[in-house]
Amino acid sequence: MTETLIDRRARLMGPNVPTFYRRPVHLVRGQGVWLWDADGTRYLDCYNNVPHVGHGHPRVVQAICDQAARLNTHTRYLHELVLDYLDRLTATLGHGISQGIMVCTGSEANDIALRMAQAVTGATGIIATDNTYHGNTAAVSALSTRRPPIGGRPAHVRLVPAPDSLRPLGGSREGQAAAFAAHVQAAIDDLAAAGHELSGLILCPVLANEGLPEVEPGFFGPALAAVRAAGGIVIADEVQPGFGRMGNHFWGHDALGFAPDVVTVGKPMANGHPVGAVLARPAVMAAFRNAFGYFNTFGGNPVSAAACLAVLDVLRDEGLVDQAARTAAHALDRMRALRHPALAQVRAAGLFLAMELVADDALTPHPALAEEVVERLRDRGFLMGRIGRQQHILKVRPPMPWGIDHADLFFDALQQVLDEVTP
Amino acid sequence: MTETLIDRRARLMGPNVPTFYRRPVHLVRGQGVWLWDADGTRYLDCYNNVPHVGHGHPRVVQAICDQAARLNTHTRYLHELVLDYLDRLTATLGHGISQGIMVCTGSEANDIALRMAQAVTGATGIIATDNTYHGNTAAVSALSTRRPPIGGRPAHVRLVPAPDSLRPLGGSREGQAAAFAAHVQAAIDDLAAAGHELSGLILCPVLANEGLPEVEPGFFGPALAAVRAAGGIVIADEVQPGFGRMGNHFWGHDALGFAPDVVTVGKPMANGHPVGAVLARPAVMAAFRNAFGYFNTFGGNPVSAAACLAVLDVLRDEGLVDQAARTAAHALDRMRALRHPALAQVRAAGLFLAMELVADDALTPHPALAEEVVERLRDRGFLMGRIGRQQHILKVRPPMPWGIDHADLFFDALQQVLDEVTP
Repeated sequence: MTETLIDRRARLMGPNVPTFYRRPVHLVRGQGVWLWDADGTRYLDCYNNVPHVGHGHPRVVQAICDQAARLNTHTRYLHELVLDYLDRLTATLGHGISQGIMVCTGSEANDIALRMAQAVTGATGIIATDNTYHGNTAAVSALSTRRPPIGGRPAHVRLVPAPDSLRPLGGSREGQAAAFAAHVQAAIDDLAAAGHELSGLILCPVLANEGLPEVEPGFFGPALAAVRAAGGIVIADEVQPGFGRMGNHFWGHDALGFAPDVVTVGKPMANGHPVGAVLARPAVMAAFRNAFGYFNTFGGNPVSAAACLAVLDVLRDEGLVDQAARTAAHALDRMRALRHPALAQVRAAGLFLAMELVADDALTPHPALAEEVVERLRDRGFLMGRIGRQQHILKVRPPMPWGIDHADLFFDALQQVLDEVTP
Repeated sequence: MTETLIDRRARLMGPNVPTFYRRPVHLVRGQGVWLWDADGTRYLDCYNNVPHVGHGHPRVVQAICDQAARLNTHTRYLHELVLDYLDRLTATLGHGISQGIMVCTGSEANDIALRMAQAVTGATGIIATDNTYHGNTAAVSALSTRRPPIGGRPAHVRLVPAPDSLRPLGGSREGQAAAFAAHVQAAIDDLAAAGHELSGLILCPVLANEGLPEVEPGFFGPALAAVRAAGGIVIADEVQPGFGRMGNHFWGHDALGFAPDVVTVGKPMANGHPVGAVLARPAVMAAFRNAFGYFNTFGGNPVSAAACLAVLDVLRDEGLVDQAARTAAHALDRMRALRHPALAQVRAAGLFLAMELVADDALTPHPALAEEVVERLRDRGFLMGRIGRQQHILKVRPPMPWGIDHADLFFDALQQVLDEVTP
């Protein structure tokens, strides 16, 4: 009997290594916004943000091939490409953020960012939301609600209730920003009472894993003021909203109108090549660099830098940020026209869409329905995912070349599936 | 005035980002064991272990190009390549180690390994040597002597004195294994007295950063017996000795004759593509996987797996492990024939060579002389480095295609430099 891929995974990777979907997809090829499985079935990619400028983009592939054949070393030698990239990347950033450390994953970036906060403040207290994910290292997983750390959460971490569009903190949408800030202040006070002064707060500017609640520009103002008043710094985890996905802004924090001290990036920046980075103001960078002799063997190598530069080139030359804004506007219209009794709210942050499903008038989350919708779309050739506290919110976060035609294909199929699962 | 690359680095990366050499090398091209700088000067690479099968090896480059053009996703989908690689890699391992987690760096691998020890034992106490480096995450840097963690070393870490060939623990070379074991036992007892039961011990099988002291097969037996008696597990950090560098064995722990529970790998495994892995016995893997829902976005992606497979192909098809053994034997002869009054001892672990320089009969380390030798060799077109407690030991750890001719070129130049710097 032939060993299946699923059996091989269990044998070689061990238990508890989930795949997406009840019938996992065995992909063999990708191009642009399309993926093909081993049977030749084509899928529209509606949620992968790693292939930011499209699967297998020829310019990114060529940049990797050319540089890999020429030279791949590390930053103990001089090389232009990592500097060219940091020059161009920091040029997209305001708020005095002009320096960076190149690493290999968003997890490594956030692991550094937490230490930057410690180095700047001399303190360790750190605040995140109670429904977030910032990565998988031991230090960063301490912030995770979905993947809590082995041995329990450390004493210097406080998780504050995440904003929610349907069930706003403080009981009203108008009062949610103040209520969130009050939770942050309470966490600061609680940390101090336990002997942990504040080093900072880390958040995804669009609260992606929290379910993409509606947070307008200025929403975080009161909370961040409390952080700064306590001496802490603000870390914006831009792994999901960054690199133009917002359409109207290159960065999530600019779309939300706040000024972080540190920005971390990962997944989309090199279209799948393993790259992440931490970007900071010089004073923050100096505090970290002088406290810790950080070196990352693969970080900022010429091949990674070439891949990163190619992604910026493609974003610019193909006008993908403006296109994301146009596609997002159309997708929002289509999303608002969806009909299903369980569809409680639809929300968007640029080309990142969320559709929240509830089971009743009490707004009880309906993860089973969300799962069923995702599975049926998979069977129709559309790959999408779920977010939110109970994984009851449909997530669409496609590669940036997703256009209006792709949005129409997807929403036509989604409405058909929603009709199928209407009671 | 044109901004130099060094100025640009300071502007874009911040302070305290060292380069190698007084006059940093600006490399632009690499091929096999050779590197070229921007002026066209050629260098023999005598210490970079990342380009394991040679800079820009065409088969590795082609594997990356082909797969990057075809598909680059993640392990939430099924794909053969990551499984093919884990099958082939674990086939090189004994001791029941048959499963793996693919990550992006050796640091990520060790960060997981520490948590595996915690998951297996329910304890957190961890032991390393007092002159080691296992990576740069917050958790792993807690073990580092050269890069101590911000805020000081955590209470669950104990660093034991590293073995030393010239200044053996316990006062005699014969007694050093027992003396090392006694230090490990004392650390176990000290941890327990402080309320930290033992989770494990992590070490590089050849003690590379410690200066490559002579440790024969069986050396670690007594120390590891103490670890196991206390319930701890043994983590072998194979980032430096692994993948055939020992010549007579594919893995350092097999050359040293001990059976680890966890093996971590990084730098050489994909010839510069950012890849690392944690390999473990199924019971250890299950303990971790069930305690923590680990997922690494880039880890085990098809492009990384293709690069890893190509490295194994090249090692096999070009007979590089056997060649390393032959080159190492010749290099050892050449090394033993070196003449300089400060040259206290030469040592080798396969194709990893160490030459220890001392200032006097009291065996005072002589880092200034080691630095001078390295700088003069750089000026002659040979790139090498230093290791040891005071960076006073010359390090040669070349790409695996380094042959007898390369060794001769290098040792001829080294002897000339040693003659120049003879008082």
